[in-house]
Amino acid sequence: MKPVMIDTTARHEAIAKSISDTGLSRDELLGAIDLGSNSFHLAIARLDHGEVRRIASISEKVQLGAGLDENNVLSEEAMERGIDCLKRFLPHVSEISPDRLRVVATNALRKAVNAQEFIRRANAFLPKPIEVIAGREEARLIYLGVSHSNASTDKRLVIDIGGGSTEFIIGQGFEPIEMESLQMGCVSFTRKFFADGRISERAFDGAMTATQTELLSIAKRYKKTGWDNAIASSGTAKACKLVLEELGFAKDVITLDGMTKLKKHLIKLGNIDKITFEGVKAHRQAVFPAGVAELLAIMQALDIKELYYSDGALREGVMYDMLGRLDNEDVRDRSVSALAERYSVDFKQAGRVMTTCGRLFDMVKADLGFDDEDRDLLRRASNLHEIGLAVGHSNYQRHSAYLLEFSDIAGFAQTGQASMAQIALNHRRKLKSENLDVIENLGGRKLAYLCLILRLAVTANHSRTIKSAPIYLSIGKDKDHWKITLGDGLHKELIVNELNNDIAQFAKWGVKLSVVGYP
Amino acid sequence: MKPVMIDTTARHEAIAKSISDTGLSRDELLGAIDLGSNSFHLAIARLDHGEVRRIASISEKVQLGAGLDENNVLSEEAMERGIDCLKRFLPHVSEISPDRLRVVATNALRKAVNAQEFIRRANAFLPKPIEVIAGREEARLIYLGVSHSNASTDKRLVIDIGGGSTEFIIGQGFEPIEMESLQMGCVSFTRKFFADGRISERAFDGAMTATQTELLSIAKRYKKTGWDNAIASSGTAKACKLVLEELGFAKDVITLDGMTKLKKHLIKLGNIDKITFEGVKAHRQAVFPAGVAELLAIMQALDIKELYYSDGALREGVMYDMLGRLDNEDVRDRSVSALAERYSVDFKQAGRVMTTCGRLFDMVKADLGFDDEDRDLLRRASNLHEIGLAVGHSNYQRHSAYLLEFSDIAGFAQTGQASMAQIALNHRRKLKSENLDVIENLGGRKLAYLCLILRLAVTANHSRTIKSAPIYLSIGKDKDHWKITLGDGLHKELIVNELNNDIAQFAKWGVKLSVVGYP
Repeated sequence: MKPVMIDTTARHEAIAKSISDTGLSRDELLGAIDLGSNSFHLAIARLDHGEVRRIASISEKVQLGAGLDENNVLSEEAMERGIDCLKRFLPHVSEISPDRLRVVATNALRKAVNAQEFIRRANAFLPKPIEVIAGREEARLIYLGVSHSNASTDKRLVIDIGGGSTEFIIGQGFEPIEMESLQMGCVSFTRKFFADGRISERAFDGAMTATQTELLSIAKRYKKTGWDNAIASSGTAKACKLVLEELGFAKDVITLDGMTKLKKHLIKLGNIDKITFEGVKAHRQAVFPAGVAELLAIMQALDIKELYYSDGALREGVMYDMLGRLDNEDVRDRSVSALAERYSVDFKQAGRVMTTCGRLFDMVKADLGFDDEDRDLLRRASNLHEIGLAVGHSNYQRHSAYLLEFSDIAGFAQTGQASMAQIALNHRRKLKSENLDVIENLGGRKLAYLCLILRLAVTANHSRTIKSAPIYLSIGKDKDHWKITLGDGLHKELIVNELNNDIAQFAKWGVKLSVVGYP
Repeated sequence: MKPVMIDTTARHEAIAKSISDTGLSRDELLGAIDLGSNSFHLAIARLDHGEVRRIASISEKVQLGAGLDENNVLSEEAMERGIDCLKRFLPHVSEISPDRLRVVATNALRKAVNAQEFIRRANAFLPKPIEVIAGREEARLIYLGVSHSNASTDKRLVIDIGGGSTEFIIGQGFEPIEMESLQMGCVSFTRKFFADGRISERAFDGAMTATQTELLSIAKRYKKTGWDNAIASSGTAKACKLVLEELGFAKDVITLDGMTKLKKHLIKLGNIDKITFEGVKAHRQAVFPAGVAELLAIMQALDIKELYYSDGALREGVMYDMLGRLDNEDVRDRSVSALAERYSVDFKQAGRVMTTCGRLFDMVKADLGFDDEDRDLLRRASNLHEIGLAVGHSNYQRHSAYLLEFSDIAGFAQTGQASMAQIALNHRRKLKSENLDVIENLGGRKLAYLCLILRLAVTANHSRTIKSAPIYLSIGKDKDHWKITLGDGLHKELIVNELNNDIAQFAKWGVKLSVVGYP
């Protein structure tokens, strides 16, 4: 498949106009970019009585997913298509305050082994770094978007067919009950079953059997949970709905009957080139038959006779999630508490360490240029640094890091989890010089400093009592020279002894630690 | 420190005589070898009314821990000392039925990065493979040994100072309440604080401060749990008890007062060469001062005035644990259930997969030469293969493997956990050819077969219903050619489709999978 070059200049001009027409300031707009496997999308909205109202949006065919080879290496061409597209998005997102903008990436960048290369190049000019989100987080955000866009108390099944993954969520109100992200989508199925462009019974059979095989693992449970109505979001569903109407197979809703007729119709057309429906945008043409096959198989497997289309999905979910963060209803804090509970964290100790971290953070905030996001990151990581104890005691810091990096934690992007994991990993035992590279690539020198602050806080609270001697940290002009003094309290000598042992460890990361004794 | 060569011929002859004097058969004896950081120990016992009675025992100074360099590489010399010692143990353990013998290794082999090399060489001639056990498992076994050797309903604190790790257990009856293994011991502290052989106030201070620093993390919790009396086991405690009696500082019990006097006495002696107490065997001489410093610091930090010595510890614990296994009271089964519960395993699905595994295992048991241990391993791994879902859904097989490899699971050695981890890891998604080496090194070709059996069982139960079509497996002369047929039931076509997809995966591990269709 060759990418089709589309001149989007006119569209971009229209968007710029829509934004400026609103007369809204940077702080009144919200923006979300979604780097999907098939298309990149930009949505810009404003807040209207607590609801997100879309002002402008644009999708561009980037086909990042098609640029992955069998070893999941993203090709240079695909990267360039992506970068070019983001550069076209840039003028619009520059109109938005960065704390009201999020850039999320899904399956293609989850899978690409060289995703970091693409992310580094994009982050160099984007006002907000790209966040790769896990499949279940994607599912959560999709449900958030759909449920806010379609207020109802019904129990709903939401299906979102993407390029490389498909999300299935059952929820009620704004709360998801079941969430899954399965490894199938219209781009990967096109490559697997429709690679030569022919639309045949055999190609449909292949894609439909593959869909049903993937669904085997969740179908029984989902049917048992049940739903009042089913909603589909995203491009494939939209195109199906429009084409069914265009062909007179259904109206306003995607029906099982209509989809069965559409399958026959497509097989009769015989080739992807023949797809000229008005409802199928140029950038969806090549992946449409695979999408139809997948959606039809899903409807059959889950006994869905009628499926409604919802316009709001991932991007709206991202914006509602952002609103929560701005309103101090950050889902990440709820997740952190749930995780601490689940792994039976010693709350008192976590509290002492968090308090010390907060104190140390404030002492050096100005010197090290920390911001509120750094504070949140340190607070959450210090709350969870001991979760690995629930797995095993020996080298538990590694288990903490593993759980933080790989758990499904609602509200977090993979980078955020990886940063918490590094902070937890390095809070005890030997520091490794080679690890510093990983850390600095992930979150810059500041992330290394956050690791060291937790390390100091843990040492100061090693005896797990509030009566331990408090430690004070000061940093002068040289950011890499840290001075510690001790206040009055228990275990002074042991703490000094431990701090002295840590001098050699800090040195590996280029930080000179001086324990200047008692104040 | 140079190893002192000791002629143990006479001791070995005496042991051989003790064993033959009992007139007991291979099935009436029990044996345990413990590869410690300072010494290797062999204990042989018989069962007397459900109690383990020691018949013969021998310890040899091997100083494996002293053979670790700063990168935890075990030197060739240390390996040779270990192998030579095990060869001397061999004639005795050959008198014991292999299912009544266990060989456990502790801290030195836990830490050695090249432990596998030593284990491979030893396993080549030992009748039972070496099992490296984790610190908390060591603690559990020590408590099992001490509690059986000293029947009491008191709440007890047990302290076992080893060469590289020290275990602290509080328990009542035969049940441990608190268990910890801390990274300190008489060998590592000798290297760190008494390397030049001088016994000084300064060396004592260093070792005692280090001990107290390590203890900081558990002291408060342990004191809160509390105990009625404190017991110390293993070589350091025995030597302290004997020397305190020899010097008239205490009688029958290790007192805080006596230990304080002993410290002064040792500093007065001034050098390790001057230690000529009868109570300190030649192989303990060099590490005695560090052991005294550690024990004294522990007694101070935990406010222990009197400490009793117990002769039974790790080796007795290993034997009592073995008795449980022989009596179908295998602690490993209790642990597996607890783990399944903790990570909310879907019990119904685990049950279906276990049943299928059991059926497939029986079909090919004779052809592949499986034994009861293989069956137990597969049963436990199949029960736990989905625990990783509790961490995250994406690639959960990796999380299952991580939890199985690194969790503190009572009753298991590290090899056993690593084997379960491999079986869980390979139950879905792509197999990797390079992983086969790891598996075959760990458990031979048989372990690879167990992985593949679970994989088939999972495929057969993918739809998570008991109504799925059952699969049948047959293997002919060629162990690497597996034939599958399907019985009547739901989802036949999807199962065949999945099995066909697996052909390419099995081929990577050299197994030809044929799906010969319906019977």
